[in-house]
Amino acid sequence: MARFENIAKLLAKDRPGYTLPRDLYVGEEAYAFDTQVMLKRVWLYACTVAHIKKPGDWFLFELANNSIIIVRGRDGQVRAFYNSCRHRGAKLCEAQKGRAPRLMCPYHQWTYGLDGRLLAARGMADDFDKADFPLTPVALENIGGLIFICMSDDPPPIDRVKADIEAQIAMYDLEKCKVAVQDDLIEHANWKLVMENNRECYHCDNNHPELLACLGNSGFGKGLPEDVAPGVIDDTAEAIAAQREEWKRLGIYHDLIEFPGNWWHRIARLPLANGAVSQTLDGKVASTKLLGPFTEPDTSSLSIWTQPNSWHHFCCDHVVTFSLTPLSPDRTLLRTSWLVREDAEEGVDYDPANLAAVWRATNGQDGYLSALNHAGIVTDGYRPGPYSLEEKLVEYFKNFYADNARKALAEAE
Amino acid sequence: MARFENIAKLLAKDRPGYTLPRDLYVGEEAYAFDTQVMLKRVWLYACTVAHIKKPGDWFLFELANNSIIIVRGRDGQVRAFYNSCRHRGAKLCEAQKGRAPRLMCPYHQWTYGLDGRLLAARGMADDFDKADFPLTPVALENIGGLIFICMSDDPPPIDRVKADIEAQIAMYDLEKCKVAVQDDLIEHANWKLVMENNRECYHCDNNHPELLACLGNSGFGKGLPEDVAPGVIDDTAEAIAAQREEWKRLGIYHDLIEFPGNWWHRIARLPLANGAVSQTLDGKVASTKLLGPFTEPDTSSLSIWTQPNSWHHFCCDHVVTFSLTPLSPDRTLLRTSWLVREDAEEGVDYDPANLAAVWRATNGQDGYLSALNHAGIVTDGYRPGPYSLEEKLVEYFKNFYADNARKALAEAE
Amino acid sequence: MARFENIAKLLAKDRPGYTLPRDLYVGEEAYAFDTQVMLKRVWLYACTVAHIKKPGDWFLFELANNSIIIVRGRDGQVRAFYNSCRHRGAKLCEAQKGRAPRLMCPYHQWTYGLDGRLLAARGMADDFDKADFPLTPVALENIGGLIFICMSDDPPPIDRVKADIEAQIAMYDLEKCKVAVQDDLIEHANWKLVMENNRECYHCDNNHPELLACLGNSGFGKGLPEDVAPGVIDDTAEAIAAQREEWKRLGIYHDLIEFPGNWWHRIARLPLANGAVSQTLDGKVASTKLLGPFTEPDTSSLSIWTQPNSWHHFCCDHVVTFSLTPLSPDRTLLRTSWLVREDAEEGVDYDPANLAAVWRATNGQDGYLSALNHAGIVTDGYRPGPYSLEEKLVEYFKNFYADNARKALAEAE
Repeated sequence: MARFENIAKLLAKDRPGYTLPRDLYVGEEAYAFDTQVMLKRVWLYACTVAHIKKPGDWFLFELANNSIIIVRGRDGQVRAFYNSCRHRGAKLCEAQKGRAPRLMCPYHQWTYGLDGRLLAARGMADDFDKADFPLTPVALENIGGLIFICMSDDPPPIDRVKADIEAQIAMYDLEKCKVAVQDDLIEHANWKLVMENNRECYHCDNNHPELLACLGNSGFGKGLPEDVAPGVIDDTAEAIAAQREEWKRLGIYHDLIEFPGNWWHRIARLPLANGAVSQTLDGKVASTKLLGPFTEPDTSSLSIWTQPNSWHHFCCDHVVTFSLTPLSPDRTLLRTSWLVREDAEEGVDYDPANLAAVWRATNGQDGYLSALNHAGIVTDGYRPGPYSLEEKLVEYFKNFYADNARKALAEAE
Repeated sequence: MARFENIAKLLAKDRPGYTLPRDLYVGEEAYAFDTQVMLKRVWLYACTVAHIKKPGDWFLFELANNSIIIVRGRDGQVRAFYNSCRHRGAKLCEAQKGRAPRLMCPYHQWTYGLDGRLLAARGMADDFDKADFPLTPVALENIGGLIFICMSDDPPPIDRVKADIEAQIAMYDLEKCKVAVQDDLIEHANWKLVMENNRECYHCDNNHPELLACLGNSGFGKGLPEDVAPGVIDDTAEAIAAQREEWKRLGIYHDLIEFPGNWWHRIARLPLANGAVSQTLDGKVASTKLLGPFTEPDTSSLSIWTQPNSWHHFCCDHVVTFSLTPLSPDRTLLRTSWLVREDAEEGVDYDPANLAAVWRATNGQDGYLSALNHAGIVTDGYRPGPYSLEEKLVEYFKNFYADNARKALAEAE
Repeated sequence: MARFENIAKLLAKDRPGYTLPRDLYVGEEAYAFDTQVMLKRVWLYACTVAHIKKPGDWFLFELANNSIIIVRGRDGQVRAFYNSCRHRGAKLCEAQKGRAPRLMCPYHQWTYGLDGRLLAARGMADDFDKADFPLTPVALENIGGLIFICMSDDPPPIDRVKADIEAQIAMYDLEKCKVAVQDDLIEHANWKLVMENNRECYHCDNNHPELLACLGNSGFGKGLPEDVAPGVIDDTAEAIAAQREEWKRLGIYHDLIEFPGNWWHRIARLPLANGAVSQTLDGKVASTKLLGPFTEPDTSSLSIWTQPNSWHHFCCDHVVTFSLTPLSPDRTLLRTSWLVREDAEEGVDYDPANLAAVWRATNGQDGYLSALNHAGIVTDGYRPGPYSLEEKLVEYFKNFYADNARKALAEAE
C-alpha cells in the first residue's frame, strides 16, 4: 500500500464541515486509489432488471479499468462476471448490451454458459479440465429490481439497504418495466464532485429551471416538509399534514430514512411542485400506462439515494435511475435510464424526448457546474471551503468517502 | 522535494555553451517542477492594461493547473486573484475575458467585490464570517502598462526592471491603447524550447521572410550595431551614428540594457530595415493613429525581452506583445496581442489582418521549428549541442532557467 | 534499474504454458521497460531496400520516443542514424520518407552527408570541430534486402539469421523490387498482443475468411504437412511428398527452420490452398511480372517470421512484409508493405487494391481481435490462461520476450 502513502496524509487533513483537500478530488493518486481500492470494497449500483429483461440479455457495467458483464440466466437469475476470457483474456462482450444463448469469446471461440461455466474450448492438452476455467464471478444483489455489484471477495453488509428499499419499491414492479431511454453523459469532473453536486439543491435556484418547475426543491438537501419553514415548499403545516394523510390512504407513505447508522441509503417520498404528477416539463404524465398500484396520476414521487454512486426517482408513470462511474481523474460517466411499463408503446403511450426532457436538461446543467468545480479546485487558490446549511447531504457523502477510504487503507496494510 | 530528486541531478549535468540535458526539456518531472515550483517563484508577464480597460474588466492568465483572474477595480487599480471560489472551489470566471460589476460564482452565487472581498454567501451557519473568505490574492506589478504576476508569497525583487522599462515605454501610454487583435497559438514544444527559439535569429534567414523584410535581424541575437561588422545590418558606422543622433533628437534613445546583474530584462531600440516604419508586410504603418510622442512615422522600434516568458515590440503606430505559458510537457500557449491607439477605428485607421500579418506568419514558422526541436530531443540520438556565436541570448535564457531552478530546489529543501 | 523493479517481480510469476501476468501486457512500467530497455537490445525489422531504392532516399523507422533515419548513401550502402541534429537536437527529417542530396536541419541548416558526417555549421566558435558532431549512428544489417536495426552499442549476434534468410530470399532480388502499397495501421493493443495474434492460426477459422481462402492454415501455428494429420491441409502424405519433389525440382525447397537454439527466425515454404498462386482474393497473381526465378505462377509461398517484430511472405509475383512498433502501452503501429517487381506498371501489371486486399482485410480483423484481447486483460477478471496445442509459436514469442527481458534486467544492474 506504499503507493498510496499520500492518501492517508490527505485524509488526515480532512476537516468537519469543509470540502476535501485538493488532491483527494483531482490527484492521479486518489483516482488510482478510488478505482483500484476504495470503490472495489463497497457496493455499486449498476443497472435495473429492466436492462436485462430476458434470459441471455447482458449489460456491461464498466468502471475505470474494469468491465463487468451483468447477465440473466436461463433460470431468470441475474449474475455478474468479469468481462475477460479465461483463455488469453480477451473481452467476451464488446457492445454495451446484447443478447446471446451463451457467452462466446470472439477470439478463439471459448464458450461459457450464462452461469459462467466453461462449456467448450478447442484443441487443449489432454490434462485440461474445463471446470478449472469458469468466468470470474462478481458479487451481485438484486434489490427490488435495482442491481448492485461489489468487486470485493468479502463484500460489506447490504441487508438493511435491501430490506428498506424493497419495502418501498416492490410495488413499482421493475420486472414489468422496460428501458425507454438511456443517456450516457460524460462529465468533465472527478466522480466525487459529480456526487457532491447531486447531494444538494443549494445550486438549484439559479441553475435548474426545468427541474424546479416540477420538483420544487424540498428534500433535495433543503430538508423534508417537517423541518423547513412554512412557504419553503409551497404550503402550510396543515396542507403538508393533509398530504401525508392522502399518501397513507394510498398505502405509499413511509417515514424518511436518511443514511441510518453505518448504512448508505436515503429514501423519501416527496411532493411534486406546481400540481405536477410526473417529472416532466409540463408536469403531466410522460407515459399513460401507470406503474404498480397507481390507477390515477399521483402528485408525489419516491426518491432513493445510495452511497457512493446512485440516485433514483419513482413517479406514478415512470422511473428514472442514475449510475455514476469514474473514467479518469477528471471524467465521469453519468448514465441515466428512464423506465416505463413494458406494455407502454413508444409514440402512443409515451414520447421518449418528453420523458427524458427534465433530467436531460438538468444533467447538462450539472455537468457544466461540476466541470467548473473541478477546474477551480486544480488551481493553487483552492482551499477547502465551508459547507452551507443546505449542504448537509454533501457532507454525508464526503464522510462516507473518507470513512471507507480510511477503512480500505487500514485493511490493506 | 524528494519527488524532484532527478531535477538536481540533471541540472548538475548542464554544461556552459551547450543545450540542456534531455529530460529537462522533455521530461514529465521537469514539467511538474517548472510549473509547480520554478515558475511560481519568478515574475511572469500576463497581459497589458489595455486588456482590462475599464473597471470590472477581467482577463484570465492560465498556466498549467493555475488560473488567475486579472481584474480592474472600481478604483482603477489592477489586481490578481486565483480563479477559485472559497466555498467549494469552482472557477468563478470561465471565459478568457469579460466584464462584470462583481465576481459571482456560477455554482452557488457566492459574490465577491472586484477587490476580492466576499460580499454575499447564502445560508451559512451563524458563526460564518465573510471576512474570512476573500479571494486568494496573487502578487501583481503594473510596469508602464505591462502586467506581471508572481505566484510566490515572497516575490523576488522587480524594482530595477520596473524602473528601466517604465523609463522607456511610458511615452507610449498603454492606458490609451486598446487590443485590436489577440492570437492564441498552441505550439507543440516544451515552453523552454519556444523561449530559446525566441532568443536568436540564427534561424531567421531560411525561415522568416516576412519578418526579415521589415526588421532585418540586427539585435535579434546578432548583436546591436555597435558590435557587428559593417554591412551586417545595412550601413556603415557613420550611418549608424547618424541614426542615433536622430533618435536622440527625438528623445527616444537609450543605451542597450541587456540582462544586467541578476535582472531579467533586455531593452533595445533597433532600426527597422528597408525603410520600414512599422512591423508590417509593406513596411508602412498598420494604424494611422500614431502612438505617444510620434507625429510622423519613425523608422525604429523599441523591443523588450523579459525572462522567462515574454517579449514586446513598440512601433510608432502599434505595440505587439507576447506571453508564453506551458500547457503540458510538449505544448505551450503563445499569446500575441496587437495594440493600437484607443481612438483608432477598425476598417478606417487599421486593418486587423494587415496589423497582425508579420508576426502571425512568424509565429507559425516558429511553432513548426519548435515542434521539430522537441520531437528530435526525445530521441536517444539527442546529445546537448553547442550554441553558435549568434545564440548568446539563448544561453542567457538557459542560465536564467538553470539558476532559478537550482535556487528553487535549494529553498524548498 | 530501480524504476523497473516490478518487471523482475512480474517476470518471476511467468508460468510455462500460460500467458503473461497482466501488467507485463498492459502496464505503463512494462511499456517504458520494453521501449527504453528490452527492445533496444535486440534486432528490429525496419523496412526493405525497396523503401530506399536510390542514393539519398531516406525512410523513418519510429518506435516510442525514438526516430531513426534509414538512408541510402551515394555508395549505395544503407545506413541508420538517430533523427536528431547535433546542434540543438531538432528532427532533421519530418516526413515518413523522402529524398535529398544531403540531410539538412530545417532549424539552423546544419548539414550532414548521407554518411552522417557534419558538412556545414554556420557561425560557430573558432575551436568548433565538425568532426566531433556527426549524426549518431544506429547499427544496421541488410539481410537479403530486409533491413534490421539495433539501438544497442553492443548488438547481439545476427549471423545465423542472416545466413539462413539470405540463402532462401536472395533469389527474389529485393533490390529489383519497388513498394507498390504501404499501409500504416494503428492497432489498439499492446505490441506483444499484436505479436501473439500473429503467431497462431487458432483464431483463423472464425475470423479470417479472405486469408484462409488462399493460404489454408497449415504452418500458421498448426504445424507443417509432415506433422499434421492427413486432411488438415488438403491432401495425403503422397500428395505432399509429390509437392516437395516439385519444389526441389524448381530449386526452392529447404527444410523448415524454426527458432533454432537461441536464434529468432522461422522460415517455411508452404503450399497455397485451393489452387492459389498468390495471396489474393481470387488466388491469381496480383502482378503479372513474376519475381526472381519464376517463369510461371507457383502454388507455394515462402514465409519468414522473426522475433520480436516482423513477418514476411514471398509469393511468386509479390512480397508482403510487416513491421510492428509500439506507440504507447495500448497502441501499436503495424506497417504492411507490398512489393512488386520494379518494372511492373500500376494499372497495367497490377492493381494496388487487389494486391493489398487479403492482408488489408486480415489486418483489420486482427486489429479488432487484439484490441478485444487488450481490453479484457486490463480487467480484474484476467488470469494468465493456458495456451492451446496450436499456440506453440505464441509461447515461443512469449519466451523470447521473457528471456530477453530478464537478460536486459540482469545486464542493467
